[in-house]
Amino acid sequence: MTNSFNDNPHRRLNILTGEWILVSPHRTKRPWQGKTEKSATKDLPVYEPSCYLCPTNERMGGEFNPSYEKPYSFVNDFSALLPNVKEESYKNGLLFAESESGICKVVCFSPNHSLTLPLMEVPDIAEVISLWQKEYKELGAKVGINHVQIFENKGDIMGCSNPHPHGQIWAQNKIPQEVQKKIESLKAYWETHRRSILEDYIEQELKLQERIIVENEHFVALIPYWAVWPYETMILPKRKLAHIGLLSESEKISYAEILKQLTIKYDNIFNTSFPYSAGIHQAPTDGTDHPEWHFHMSFYPPLLRSATVKKFMVGYEMFANPQRDITAEQAAETMKSLSNEHYSSLG
Amino acid sequence: MTNSFNDNPHRRLNILTGEWILVSPHRTKRPWQGKTEKSATKDLPVYEPSCYLCPTNERMGGEFNPSYEKPYSFVNDFSALLPNVKEESYKNGLLFAESESGICKVVCFSPNHSLTLPLMEVPDIAEVISLWQKEYKELGAKVGINHVQIFENKGDIMGCSNPHPHGQIWAQNKIPQEVQKKIESLKAYWETHRRSILEDYIEQELKLQERIIVENEHFVALIPYWAVWPYETMILPKRKLAHIGLLSESEKISYAEILKQLTIKYDNIFNTSFPYSAGIHQAPTDGTDHPEWHFHMSFYPPLLRSATVKKFMVGYEMFANPQRDITAEQAAETMKSLSNEHYSSLG
Ligand SMILES: O=P(O)(O)O[C@H]1O[C@H](CO)[C@@H](O)[C@H](O)[C@H]1O
Ligand SMILES: O=P(O)(O)O[C@H]1O[C@H](CO)[C@@H](O)[C@H](O)[C@H]1O
Repeated sequence: MTNSFNDNPHRRLNILTGEWILVSPHRTKRPWQGKTEKSATKDLPVYEPSCYLCPTNERMGGEFNPSYEKPYSFVNDFSALLPNVKEESYKNGLLFAESESGICKVVCFSPNHSLTLPLMEVPDIAEVISLWQKEYKELGAKVGINHVQIFENKGDIMGCSNPHPHGQIWAQNKIPQEVQKKIESLKAYWETHRRSILEDYIEQELKLQERIIVENEHFVALIPYWAVWPYETMILPKRKLAHIGLLSESEKISYAEILKQLTIKYDNIFNTSFPYSAGIHQAPTDGTDHPEWHFHMSFYPPLLRSATVKKFMVGYEMFANPQRDITAEQAAETMKSLSNEHYSSLG
Repeated sequence: MTNSFNDNPHRRLNILTGEWILVSPHRTKRPWQGKTEKSATKDLPVYEPSCYLCPTNERMGGEFNPSYEKPYSFVNDFSALLPNVKEESYKNGLLFAESESGICKVVCFSPNHSLTLPLMEVPDIAEVISLWQKEYKELGAKVGINHVQIFENKGDIMGCSNPHPHGQIWAQNKIPQEVQKKIESLKAYWETHRRSILEDYIEQELKLQERIIVENEHFVALIPYWAVWPYETMILPKRKLAHIGLLSESEKISYAEILKQLTIKYDNIFNTSFPYSAGIHQAPTDGTDHPEWHFHMSFYPPLLRSATVKKFMVGYEMFANPQRDITAEQAAETMKSLSNEHYSSLG
């Protein structure tokens, strides 16, 4: 960028949600005397007898896991959403509520308790993607399920209560808030340009190169111009695909490869198993056509300064506006310069 | 409520932002094996030589605090917003940015390092409110300052790096995101009803009583029907006041009293110094009239199950929708039943 935005406070627009974020590039000089987190524990066993996600073990709900060898999914024993909830709506003066129903599932990425995505082999990550595809399709096809949210909370700092590699899926009747915002932006752009806004965005970023972290045949991983979290990234297919169900075999491998490459970069930032929440945004499963959709996976990692100091989204951020201290370009520079080999293998 | 919403998953509408939140009342049965926080440290000294907020001490920027005896404010040594930033805007294809300027201040609530709002005397809390009034007025009157955000981050789990009782003010040129959403709802209601939506809401809640935690002559503290955080509350003046500058002397005392009462209740939930972010939303200082505004102060506290287990707003919440596990009514019942005396004085 040729203006003063590398050094001066400014706001950037998230073209997918229509929301602004405040950037304070000069603020990284601030000393930190506050809370530090424990850094991630390492050297987990391949099988952990007390883990309710390991093969053959008893789950919290009393069922036993099969002796699974590939990615394995099951209905969450403590689902936040339930199927067959009676449809009701409630209006009393200024109080408005409505029933909601859905299905929550847990997806174990691997039988191996000690792994994480960056440590898994590409074909095994591709198996995870295959299971996501199957779940998106099957859950989405159910009557009353109009949205399928696939996500992963990684690390105890992200509320993950078990290090066994796993993610979740919450499928539900109503279109969630964050997705609704994106639907509106994607639609508005599609209607004027007959192109997905993300196709045009990828084209621009590939020309600029400044925020591209990894690129392969079919996919790009970049730090979006409007990133909120310090090392927030986005993985996008180059081709406009409304959902993961449409990936070709070779695109699926490309996706698995870039997932591995990006998460290796993450672990290499602070030589720690990098915590994050990741999620895939894709077309609703409401039975209508979604030519405007271009699926993408975002990573929201909280760490800012070290393996133990995170960015707090509190006070000003909760009441006013998301705010970040390093620019997307600074974060991209750091990530680009890191090795493509996982730090644990570099000795 | 006479329907099944006390037990079944549902969504509720936030009438101030137009956003929905997912409620999963059945989910509190979930066991917790995840991250626990350190509970708040107690027994702080009245004066702490290494604290950069205590009277007469050196601050991180090299200045010295005066020997202040009343609430004291100064410009943040590491401000995220800066005054006199050159006005610029940037547009390059799908990248949009614009400069932002403002002023960040720190407000010390008391010279006494060991206090918190619930432990302060009502007249001393009233002095804090007086300082907030002065800052709102003076900052808001400055050319180019259209919004003044007063807030407090309390507890290291909320990113607060110093236990000395203090809050912050970020005043800026643009209207922040969260405030913009509220402006739209407040305006829409005002235009149709010629009443503030919050006047009507308070009236309804006072009739129902279900979510009212504390009430005094001029103020109400309640758990809003659409609360997101487990023990989220809101303090509102009964009279429609666009901003804190309009409080009468007796209203100011009422406000100080209810602040003390509510924060005592908070500390009594888990017998700990309760962490939260609190913020005051009020009329923009953009020089135009705001008949639609009704100022209110919200508390977003993260603790859910105990002094050490918080609610994580991650994964689903980040990608889809805010979600809560206990209903507003359950939280209100707990808070109402707690003593009005601070647990530390009950021995
Ligand atoms: O300004 P402080 O107290 O150092 O910092 C804290 O409050 C700020 C405003 O809510 C946040 O941006 C920071 O992430 C948080 O750590
Ligand atoms: O379902 P888990 O892993 O027990 O719980 C975690 O993820 C959920 C979905 O993002 C959140 O609602 C919880 O707050 C979090 O602790």
